[in-house]
Amino acid sequence: MSTYRQAGVDIEAGDRLVKAIASDVTSTWTDSVVGGFGGFAAGIEIPPGYRRPVLMMSTDGVGTKIEVARRARIMDGLGHDLVAMCVDDLAAVGAKPLAFTDYLATGRIDPTRDERLVGSIARACQIAGCALLGGETAEHPGVMAPEHFDLAGAALGIVERGEEIDGSSIELGDVIIGVASPNLRSNGFSLIRSIFDLGNLSDPFPGEPTRTTGEVLTEPSVIYAPSIQAVITTGHVTGLAHISGGGLPGNAGRPLSGGLSAHIDPSSWRPPNVFAVVQATGGISTAEMFATFNMGIGFVVYARPGAYPEISATLLDHSHPSFVIGEVTRGHSVVAIDGMPTESV
Amino acid sequence: MSTYRQAGVDIEAGDRLVKAIASDVTSTWTDSVVGGFGGFAAGIEIPPGYRRPVLMMSTDGVGTKIEVARRARIMDGLGHDLVAMCVDDLAAVGAKPLAFTDYLATGRIDPTRDERLVGSIARACQIAGCALLGGETAEHPGVMAPEHFDLAGAALGIVERGEEIDGSSIELGDVIIGVASPNLRSNGFSLIRSIFDLGNLSDPFPGEPTRTTGEVLTEPSVIYAPSIQAVITTGHVTGLAHISGGGLPGNAGRPLSGGLSAHIDPSSWRPPNVFAVVQATGGISTAEMFATFNMGIGFVVYARPGAYPEISATLLDHSHPSFVIGEVTRGHSVVAIDGMPTESV
Repeated sequence: MSTYRQAGVDIEAGDRLVKAIASDVTSTWTDSVVGGFGGFAAGIEIPPGYRRPVLMMSTDGVGTKIEVARRARIMDGLGHDLVAMCVDDLAAVGAKPLAFTDYLATGRIDPTRDERLVGSIARACQIAGCALLGGETAEHPGVMAPEHFDLAGAALGIVERGEEIDGSSIELGDVIIGVASPNLRSNGFSLIRSIFDLGNLSDPFPGEPTRTTGEVLTEPSVIYAPSIQAVITTGHVTGLAHISGGGLPGNAGRPLSGGLSAHIDPSSWRPPNVFAVVQATGGISTAEMFATFNMGIGFVVYARPGAYPEISATLLDHSHPSFVIGEVTRGHSVVAIDGMPTESV
Repeated sequence: MSTYRQAGVDIEAGDRLVKAIASDVTSTWTDSVVGGFGGFAAGIEIPPGYRRPVLMMSTDGVGTKIEVARRARIMDGLGHDLVAMCVDDLAAVGAKPLAFTDYLATGRIDPTRDERLVGSIARACQIAGCALLGGETAEHPGVMAPEHFDLAGAALGIVERGEEIDGSSIELGDVIIGVASPNLRSNGFSLIRSIFDLGNLSDPFPGEPTRTTGEVLTEPSVIYAPSIQAVITTGHVTGLAHISGGGLPGNAGRPLSGGLSAHIDPSSWRPPNVFAVVQATGGISTAEMFATFNMGIGFVVYARPGAYPEISATLLDHSHPSFVIGEVTRGHSVVAIDGMPTESV
């Protein structure tokens, strides 16, 4: 007789996992959460003060950073990566993150590993100010290897109608402020995997003798959303961009409309050591580095030139250094980085 | 020199795919959608008439039904499966689906295949009354095989505070109405894959000579949410359950609270042929069949006994047959199915 367990699906392990993560999940819940843990779906009330709220959604995964983290056995930061990838897209339209759901697919449920993963997602949700309203752990025996897993998530955010930030108020001469990213965040990892030997992740990282290669490559992403919400309340923000896949060339110009160009001077900040090591180890051109990695700028804020001191101070209140990395010019390319070839639009 | 393309990630193919799916995605957008296609995130306004809206979220995947669909080359229903799995969890708490995001992970982006997948998700969103607000297509070269893919999604729903359906008004003697599912929906496919030879999916299905095994096994899930919303407006619903992983034993009793049992008579409806063939082919016990598959009941509605005619007629308006499959009794097990062993609680 066939049973579901013989087919590789362990419903009891799944049930045990659900019980184990309950306290992590509900630690993200405030009084505004409606419904109990274990129901078909949970909900959240709209925070006070919105007259005409717009509900924004974003979704993303961690990509193959998972593979590096798994091989390095450093998985407690993946939740930060997942939540950052989703909520910082919300932050880039001016929305405040409210709620989150996670999806974990694996060849075989490993309750110890999976509880740690969900725990890290829950901690990241607390940082982002999100309630972790739901999740799915899917066992795919025979399709995924038992030890493999994938993580995706979706975030719900809210913004008052008319207060979305879409870049339409960006003007010629606005400054482009880059918010520091100390690490790779969660992009470019297919290239990282082709450069570094995943069998040597416990070796010291070049130039950082106290940290292993695994530690440097898997360092958790900054979650910018709370600091960006604070920056928005200064009233000076004209545009925002989350620097994810495609780097500055692929993202910094997204809030710009016709005829305007983001002119970026790459000498205006110093990318962290990890990027130089990746470039040297892989023999990667500078243009390819910028098109693949964040190069030390994880988020971009557009504002009038006089607003930089206040915006910079607000970001520093959240421990995020920032730099004026360029300005809005007239131009034929959306993003022009000094010294690098550009694509016309 | 290494490049991201050599590492297996084709950003241009991704960009081409994004352009190709734009019309499918925006076909789900009404005037209430805010933001353009291709921004960091899009949003939706709250429909009129809510005084104190609660925002509910649910997330799910299609599981390894994908593997059967891929091998059968019948992938146009997977969007229905994905949307059904998510929005019908919202329906089960009384929420109306508003918006959806999808996540597609693959070893290699196949623009033709992936445009069809997103197209099927968009069509399913239209049926569910959801705006497809965002999506992520993630290429995982070297981690997933090029032809493999996985699908997950997240749904946002809305319900007026106090009108959530959590089963608290279920009473002794309420009838349990089963809403017909003509097929497997999207659960139990790891067992299905262990029973059927995926090399023979073009053979006629036993008892259904005009359809192939692949066609029967991959038949798209019913999306119940719109009909359940209509049933709720009758004012007679006391509890709801979406029958997904774990079948009737694992789901039908979820809205029940202490001391009440869902007493189900399996002779009160006739499961479609597919379930008998699965059971016979796999040599599966009846109890295991009920604990793994929906057995022809995809959704359960609790109501006072006199409400069945009106609820049944409403469901039939949406082309969903329904049956009184049991009643609420006092009992020690949450779900008792005549003739089958039960677990105490």
